[in-house]
Amino acid sequence: MSQPIVVPVALGARSYEIAIGPGLLAEAGQRISALAPKARLAIVTDANVAALHLATLTASLDAAGLEHQTITVAPGEASKSFATFAEVCEGLIATRVERGDLVVAFGGGVIGDLAGFAAAAVRRGMRFVQIPTSLLAQVDSSVGGKTGINSRHGKNLVGAFHQPSLVLADTQVLDTLSRREFRAGYAEVAKYGLINDAPFFHWLENNWQDVMAGGPARVEAIATSCRSKAGIVARDETETGERALLNLGHTFGHALEAVTGYNSARLVHGEGVSIGMVLAHEFSARLGLCSQETPSRVAAHLATAGLPTRIDQVPGGAGTAGELMNAILQDKKVKRGKLTFILTHGIGESFIANDVDPSAVTGFLEEKLAGAGKLGA
Amino acid sequence: MSQPIVVPVALGARSYEIAIGPGLLAEAGQRISALAPKARLAIVTDANVAALHLATLTASLDAAGLEHQTITVAPGEASKSFATFAEVCEGLIATRVERGDLVVAFGGGVIGDLAGFAAAAVRRGMRFVQIPTSLLAQVDSSVGGKTGINSRHGKNLVGAFHQPSLVLADTQVLDTLSRREFRAGYAEVAKYGLINDAPFFHWLENNWQDVMAGGPARVEAIATSCRSKAGIVARDETETGERALLNLGHTFGHALEAVTGYNSARLVHGEGVSIGMVLAHEFSARLGLCSQETPSRVAAHLATAGLPTRIDQVPGGAGTAGELMNAILQDKKVKRGKLTFILTHGIGESFIANDVDPSAVTGFLEEKLAGAGKLGA
Repeated sequence: MSQPIVVPVALGARSYEIAIGPGLLAEAGQRISALAPKARLAIVTDANVAALHLATLTASLDAAGLEHQTITVAPGEASKSFATFAEVCEGLIATRVERGDLVVAFGGGVIGDLAGFAAAAVRRGMRFVQIPTSLLAQVDSSVGGKTGINSRHGKNLVGAFHQPSLVLADTQVLDTLSRREFRAGYAEVAKYGLINDAPFFHWLENNWQDVMAGGPARVEAIATSCRSKAGIVARDETETGERALLNLGHTFGHALEAVTGYNSARLVHGEGVSIGMVLAHEFSARLGLCSQETPSRVAAHLATAGLPTRIDQVPGGAGTAGELMNAILQDKKVKRGKLTFILTHGIGESFIANDVDPSAVTGFLEEKLAGAGKLGA
Repeated sequence: MSQPIVVPVALGARSYEIAIGPGLLAEAGQRISALAPKARLAIVTDANVAALHLATLTASLDAAGLEHQTITVAPGEASKSFATFAEVCEGLIATRVERGDLVVAFGGGVIGDLAGFAAAAVRRGMRFVQIPTSLLAQVDSSVGGKTGINSRHGKNLVGAFHQPSLVLADTQVLDTLSRREFRAGYAEVAKYGLINDAPFFHWLENNWQDVMAGGPARVEAIATSCRSKAGIVARDETETGERALLNLGHTFGHALEAVTGYNSARLVHGEGVSIGMVLAHEFSARLGLCSQETPSRVAAHLATAGLPTRIDQVPGGAGTAGELMNAILQDKKVKRGKLTFILTHGIGESFIANDVDPSAVTGFLEEKLAGAGKLGA
């Protein structure tokens, strides 16, 4: 087998490893077999991933003598619905996988969240393996056990904390992503620098092209991201504190996704996060928490990497400040009327602010929307 | 406030108390307020319970100054569906209850299981209070954190382990149950004697009429049942071992419910458990594990209490042995082709048998069905 980078996630009895490197998909059978020798597997995937990569995965499982069945759902955010959740649960039960068997979430963030929640719920908890096939999923959603589906009132409002037993991140699989999808995932990579690792952000400023091109820089960037997330999750599994830092840029980002109707033609999650991170830094500067240069530097790097950084870059517009605020108030980071935002004192110096005045946010958004061209990066 | 019997459930950080006694509904406001002084409450109930008892509950909450909203679903097992789960989750999110607030499951076992699963899933876990209004729910489903809904393939196949923060069992509310509903819950009370407490079974043989009539014997029977369940759950929260004992009679019982289409006009859960417990004792006797007198004594007491004890008492019949076996194989207590049954060496001497041969069960069921009148109690 190859020698991937292995990042441990230390969660006591629920600890597991993330293996990161090229060619892991072809080794999935051996690696899963080492974890659960005679388990039967129920693979949950989407039609796009199945067309590109399912044959490689199943050949590897066959070679390892592992029985498997596949449940395929439609690609896209719309599958994070109650209806598809029901369909996947019923499908898993129909395969007659038992408590010792494994669910395999094989796809991007949507599949990981959906299949992970189904694995959490079927028989009140089945073991599962994450095989993330998007950059976003490899550095974010496949790590840390947050699973879930969307409510009509907002994203990820229904789900479970359910840790995988193993994560296999094949960095070569990312070559089949579109440039847009890769960049969207890159926003989450940059996030780890912005949260608490200024040297990593600096490294990305110098090496982002190598990360996109593939090879060791890509593996290193993904491993650094996973290590950062694993550390935070190990210290705060169920988000009673520090884990909220991972939401940097996400409150604004989720709101932008909501007002654009989760329409990926207009905005995908990572693009929302990119604009959201710039907004979070601009809002911090406006509150006098960091220098005016901080948001400019953040926006400059994300723009160079090909990501949107301004509200006026959302095709079709991003609604009114009122619509954005309504989406923010429906998000899950609300407590007793005060808003929780991740704000920052500078690059790599983010912190949790629990007492943000909603009217300050409204004022800020109104200003951004009114003079988007002028005030934006 | 009154002086109910309080049974602690010792689960570390997830510990909670079950309060048992008459008149607790009218004290719900004070007791919930003591637990969560400024929480907002989302009550989940069904139309029957709402008509009989909601005014008492909300008056008590109002007196304690607790804000509340109510989500009402249709009564009956059909509400333990993916569709109603989605409806309750969306309803809870629409009330804008936040993570520190409380979901109140106010009803029988269906409501407890459904609302409990929704509380587990919304925002990946909200606190909740169980106010069980049926005997079944007071002695079984409201205690121990098993929540869930039904799959088209079987009961309770989708859900979560999610412990309540408080259980309020008002024993007076049970006066509004039909005799049939009360008896169905009584099957679960008798179960605790059969599992591991022969003196309790003996006490029930002598005091069952007082339990049904109400007063101290009823409170005592419910408290003894809850103590028994709390002890088992504290030792094995997620059913990796001993907790399976609580399934005594349930593998057969669930199969009977499945083949009768979960039609409560034909069979309710407790009736299935009653017949199932007799079958489990008869099967144990057939395997030479206990005396022939044991199943006779079990059947005699349950029949005296007005419960069905034989397959041929199921209105419309209970299908073929093949249909029952198919339902058993879909149930969640299957492992590597061997069946797990709760069998017994005698009254109060049940144990987990992990290696029951399916063909022995089939043979036993064929015999029971062929000569139901002759071989039954």
